Amino acid sequence: MGDLAQALDLARTVPDFPEPGILFWDLTPVLADAPAMAAVVDGFRRVSGAGPDLVAAVEARGFLFGAAYAATHGLGVVPVRKAGKLPVVGHRLEYRLEYGTATLEVPAGVIQPGQRILVIDDVLATGGTAAAACALVEHAGGTVTGVCVVLEIGALDGRKRLADRPVHALRTV
Amino acid sequence: MGDLAQALDLARTVPDFPEPGILFWDLTPVLADAPAMAAVVDGFRRVSGAGPDLVAAVEARGFLFGAAYAATHGLGVVPVRKAGKLPVVGHRLEYRLEYGTATLEVPAGVIQPGQRILVIDDVLATGGTAAAACALVEHAGGTVTGVCVVLEIGALDGRKRLADRPVHALRTV
Repeated sequence: MGDLAQALDLARTVPDFPEPGILFWDLTPVLADAPAMAAVVDGFRRVSGAGPDLVAAVEARGFLFGAAYAATHGLGVVPVRKAGKLPVVGHRLEYRLEYGTATLEVPAGVIQPGQRILVIDDVLATGGTAAAACALVEHAGGTVTGVCVVLEIGALDGRKRLADRPVHALRTV
Repeated sequence: MGDLAQALDLARTVPDFPEPGILFWDLTPVLADAPAMAAVVDGFRRVSGAGPDLVAAVEARGFLFGAAYAATHGLGVVPVRKAGKLPVVGHRLEYRLEYGTATLEVPAGVIQPGQRILVIDDVLATGGTAAAACALVEHAGGTVTGVCVVLEIGALDGRKRLADRPVHALRTV
């Protein structure tokens, strides 16, 4: 399975990306390292509790972690996409960012009412995107069993926006 | 493992997306179906020959299939991204589309020289994106062992642009 702490130590920070004042957490060295990815996927399993029926992966870096988790644990994966990418939209949600708005969409016909769905993304920052992804899954009839992220930026307190949905971060930075 | 033909039959076509005259292949029903995903990942393994060291997954739908394959087979995954998404770019390639150009990038420091790399995307259409992804992997010092896609649009003859790199499609449409 690899060692989780060692795996997360592969993450690297890049100052002022994508804009001045932002410290970006680059997880590509984690993704490219097979034992590290195995440790992350196993870490998600240990923290996420009772098995979900389906994974919802948030575009785009969440696709990588979400699909890895889903495939390892024999689950399907539904992509939560940015506006305009899905040809058949089931539900759409516009949400506020610090400046302006963003829109997420889920495909029609792939979430079955009552399915227990684990939402996976790479990093939890302000929580706006994760909250929108959860709301979309719920609009489609799913039940969010939790939100799993590799890293949580503690200072931004993103889990506040996720209300009573369980949030599982492998490391808080 | 599930049945591959049955899995691929879950794909649905959407006319005139993303623009008039284009028939879009929507693979979200395949992604969301656990047995179908297992069949796709197993199908990739059967066609892709000698085991690669690493998977290169093409943004964004390729992330889902590439990460699923990588995790199932105990490999890491390197994202091949659209311009401006990676904080530390190792190699960048601009390539021609039918109208205009596009740019792909790979992260610095995650591809080791000599690594045998399998490129994974969802659909092979004109082959421009896949060819650019292969060239980037090679610029970074990797050896492309092949290109795996779920669907190949036969009429567009995309494999012509991939020169002598082996192309493996689970179905040609």
